[in-house]
Amino acid sequence: MRLSQMLFVTLREDPAEATIPSHKLLLRAGYIRRIGSGIYAYLPLMWRVLQKVSQIVRQEMNATGAQECLLPQLQPADLWRESERWDTYTQAENIMFALTDRHKQELGLGPTHEEVITAIARDMIRSYRQLPLHLYQLQTKFRDEIRPRFGLMRGREFIMKDGYSFHTNEESLKKTYQDMHQAYSNMLRRCGLAFRAVEADSGAIGGSGSQEFMVLAEAGEDEVLYTEDGQYAANVEKAVSLPPDAEESSFTTSEKRETPGTETIDKLCQFLKCHSTQIVKNVLYQTVYDNGMKVLVLVSIRGDQDVNEVKLQNELTKLAPQYGGKTIIALTVPDAEAQQKWAAKPLPLGYIAPDITDDYITEDKQIHPKFVRLVDKTAVNLKNFVTGSNESGYHVVGANWGEQFKLPEMVLDVRKARLGDRAIHDPSQTLQTARGIEIGHIFQLGTKYSKAMGATYTNEQGEEVPLVMGCYGVGVSRLAQAAVEQSYDKDGIIWPVAIAPYQVIISIPNTGDTKQVEAAEQLYTQLNEAGIETLLDDRDERAGVKFKDADLIGIPYRVVTGRSLNNGKVEIVERATHKSQEIPLSEVVSALKEWISTAVS
Amino acid sequence: MRLSQMLFVTLREDPAEATIPSHKLLLRAGYIRRIGSGIYAYLPLMWRVLQKVSQIVRQEMNATGAQECLLPQLQPADLWRESERWDTYTQAENIMFALTDRHKQELGLGPTHEEVITAIARDMIRSYRQLPLHLYQLQTKFRDEIRPRFGLMRGREFIMKDGYSFHTNEESLKKTYQDMHQAYSNMLRRCGLAFRAVEADSGAIGGSGSQEFMVLAEAGEDEVLYTEDGQYAANVEKAVSLPPDAEESSFTTSEKRETPGTETIDKLCQFLKCHSTQIVKNVLYQTVYDNGMKVLVLVSIRGDQDVNEVKLQNELTKLAPQYGGKTIIALTVPDAEAQQKWAAKPLPLGYIAPDITDDYITEDKQIHPKFVRLVDKTAVNLKNFVTGSNESGYHVVGANWGEQFKLPEMVLDVRKARLGDRAIHDPSQTLQTARGIEIGHIFQLGTKYSKAMGATYTNEQGEEVPLVMGCYGVGVSRLAQAAVEQSYDKDGIIWPVAIAPYQVIISIPNTGDTKQVEAAEQLYTQLNEAGIETLLDDRDERAGVKFKDADLIGIPYRVVTGRSLNNGKVEIVERATHKSQEIPLSEVVSALKEWISTAVS
Repeated sequence: MRLSQMLFVTLREDPAEATIPSHKLLLRAGYIRRIGSGIYAYLPLMWRVLQKVSQIVRQEMNATGAQECLLPQLQPADLWRESERWDTYTQAENIMFALTDRHKQELGLGPTHEEVITAIARDMIRSYRQLPLHLYQLQTKFRDEIRPRFGLMRGREFIMKDGYSFHTNEESLKKTYQDMHQAYSNMLRRCGLAFRAVEADSGAIGGSGSQEFMVLAEAGEDEVLYTEDGQYAANVEKAVSLPPDAEESSFTTSEKRETPGTETIDKLCQFLKCHSTQIVKNVLYQTVYDNGMKVLVLVSIRGDQDVNEVKLQNELTKLAPQYGGKTIIALTVPDAEAQQKWAAKPLPLGYIAPDITDDYITEDKQIHPKFVRLVDKTAVNLKNFVTGSNESGYHVVGANWGEQFKLPEMVLDVRKARLGDRAIHDPSQTLQTARGIEIGHIFQLGTKYSKAMGATYTNEQGEEVPLVMGCYGVGVSRLAQAAVEQSYDKDGIIWPVAIAPYQVIISIPNTGDTKQVEAAEQLYTQLNEAGIETLLDDRDERAGVKFKDADLIGIPYRVVTGRSLNNGKVEIVERATHKSQEIPLSEVVSALKEWISTAVS
Repeated sequence: MRLSQMLFVTLREDPAEATIPSHKLLLRAGYIRRIGSGIYAYLPLMWRVLQKVSQIVRQEMNATGAQECLLPQLQPADLWRESERWDTYTQAENIMFALTDRHKQELGLGPTHEEVITAIARDMIRSYRQLPLHLYQLQTKFRDEIRPRFGLMRGREFIMKDGYSFHTNEESLKKTYQDMHQAYSNMLRRCGLAFRAVEADSGAIGGSGSQEFMVLAEAGEDEVLYTEDGQYAANVEKAVSLPPDAEESSFTTSEKRETPGTETIDKLCQFLKCHSTQIVKNVLYQTVYDNGMKVLVLVSIRGDQDVNEVKLQNELTKLAPQYGGKTIIALTVPDAEAQQKWAAKPLPLGYIAPDITDDYITEDKQIHPKFVRLVDKTAVNLKNFVTGSNESGYHVVGANWGEQFKLPEMVLDVRKARLGDRAIHDPSQTLQTARGIEIGHIFQLGTKYSKAMGATYTNEQGEEVPLVMGCYGVGVSRLAQAAVEQSYDKDGIIWPVAIAPYQVIISIPNTGDTKQVEAAEQLYTQLNEAGIETLLDDRDERAGVKFKDADLIGIPYRVVTGRSLNNGKVEIVERATHKSQEIPLSEVVSALKEWISTAVS
């Protein structure tokens, strides 16, 4: 392609709309244009990158025997009502765009396709002889994000590969899940990305187990905890670990102590000269279920630990049926206004005990018909601990479960694992932390959707049983931007060769010099004929502008038909290293061919 | 691909939801599945067909220098307000799905992308030196059709290639328009389709000229008129022609005649023993503009001719500004209820004169504040004609414009051209008729969108002037179904080789026969290695079932590893002709390779 004939506009300044480097660079280098909040046009250079990523994804998927198809983006609400996700997705979490057609029928814009594929499977899969089966698609998806940001990282319209597999049993599912783990690793490696597969929370998709694929980058929205031995890695939302051992308590007798101004653990430790592991901290939450039911939750946890709200929400979601709901709309620390609705008198914040005594909850303000207590495992075995007294300015020291306070019936792991914790698989390993961009997520769904939607098959014994399912997603457009986030310098993007929009750019320093133009044109023809994707910067611009633009858009190899032509040579500059060398004209094609094939192998 | 590992389910019976052959066959052969009204899943076989069509489209577009990109499907309403199409598309014609996001912002689901691309051009094109430029995309589009039907022919979600070109002047636009004409012709030829390019109405897209590409098929929704010399072809909506000459009138004196029971032209001709070309027929319409303004329209046209309502609507749209509107919502023959609202007494239907006298329109029922009269060219030069008298049971004979009736000021061509009319370019040619499926439409937009949205560039003289635009669309999913509509038989689909999902299917008549299986497996490997896309029907089914399925799904060549193996041969059956021949095993690959390359050249 000739740059003079392309829609090619670069910006010298960082656009105001962008904060992270990859977003700035994609805008500046003319890869994307913002059309609305979280909505981008992929311009020709970007489109080529996306095609390359898609092609790698396709090849790896096809190699596993998965078959490509294309499912509709418009999805009838009724399908989502069958799986009981319509309300969650359009109201509770409100991440699915919903609309009504001219006949007042409700439709959703697909953020994911479990419902549609399960409906097809229900219709078409009759016998175990048709299984296993894996269908996938590459498609634009939609999510009505609360805060679209970071360009393609968190957009409202984005390209995904999503695949769905169907099985007769868990074993077959696990095999495909493993195949996908391998396929995803291959994809990311071939795209030239540093990544880590981590254990993950399954969120609104559900199912028994899932893993995320994280591209490592400082701007990543996710925190990953891992061990150096490579045996453990998890999203912090999901991570488990061994907490540090608790110190032995020095309070051998129980008593209420005046502890003024000790609302935080730090201050309390200082005041009582105790260790934070000797304290039971009591944290109040309010949760709202999808049926409107509000429940007050008091979590007791060891003083040096924090509550992992994703884990907490998962546990509270399990309680939904007993409150007549299906899912949780909100989990918050109740603010002053919320407290006023149910508290009879101001709460002793910073001094809350493992139970809230009745006098704090008024009868006539019972908008929280339920009150739930739970205790994290870290706080269960503490002896002679320090905790709140439900009276401002006072703590209880030397307390014990079963004596001063009843141990809550619900003992759970709702603790946030953190940097430095010991690993469960090998306590000699400590958790390390890294930031990542989630670009893939694979799930063992089990029978969640097939049961809800009645998608069954006849097994070898002639029985009708629900299909066992898995699902597997890769964010294609997000992956492309993550590659930039992982690979840039002060001059611009440094594309991995395998997904660069073009592999080579020929810059003519002076388009007024016939010799330069002729050499460039000849190389351009030769490179294209050799199947090397080449841009020709034939614009009537200064050499400096051309070199800056070439660096900015990040083409792996720049060929300059400049002064060295006098020696029958051109200069070739490698974008990543800025390493330059002069190569005889006759060797340019073979040299580039070899470098490229080495880089993408 | 092995059929045993594919999602492959065929139906023996025609599905009730389908009426036209291509829709029935795509459902029966397992290419598509209905998910909702006008919403289909493209299953793996269909996806391959769509990919092949897309690839041909891409190649032909790229060959013209157009660049592929991808624009968002979600489009901010504000962009459509700038072009003044939001109301037309979401209310008047109501074909765009509209929705509001969580922040109550309005968005539309793109049925077309003039607004988005013009916004990008406005942002990025500054100078004539960047022009001409042509961007295109392959994308799923949405239309909230009133009556989705015929499967992929008129769906609510469908795949389009849409391209937009930008120019400094009309001449440059016309050149790209011609290139597109050629590219579209190439695409359709390469896809193996019989088609015709025809002059077309530009409809809601607008602009100065447009052509449609019609795939010829009996089930086509469009009627095409053309001349045998190949010099003229047009959609009936747009077609022009010379009407037959009028007979000379035998009524030399004007008088009102009692003509009982002559509400139709036929009856009137019979009663008066006159020719239909001697009559002026007066047809009443009611039109509603987008601002709610209703206008009554009386069209006078020669008795043997019919009104072309598309032409009439285009003419009435031009009047919109004088009624304070922008477009027309509805054009209808007023029904009894509508008449009751404005008519003071029952209308003399069948006897209406070229003007409706005031006593028919009441003052106090003036919901039609305007009354428009117009006359088609065919009725202007009639002398001594017969026409209505505004009195039931009576016609006027020997009437003349300027005597009994005032000639309407608006003289227009609103006549429907028809089979047998003489062609304008050569009156010795008569119009022929054919039915077609519109699969492409190319438009010379001019400055309609650039002016409305302020998309300008600086020309060589340093002046800011609006960009000149063209746009070009192909219905990819519709094209794929049109191919079936044009090519099938009682046994199933007959895919053109270039767009068949697989080129070859190997059917093993008896999977219990090791020799058959071995030969098939060997051929399967050889064909795949030779780059021939091959299906292996290795299912444990009877030979008859396999042959029936192979015919139904329409794979161009079927290789049968049956009895002829005893002579070292296999049978190869050509799907289109059912012609069978035995070929030595060693020659199968080369024979198929040659046949395929001949078929797609």
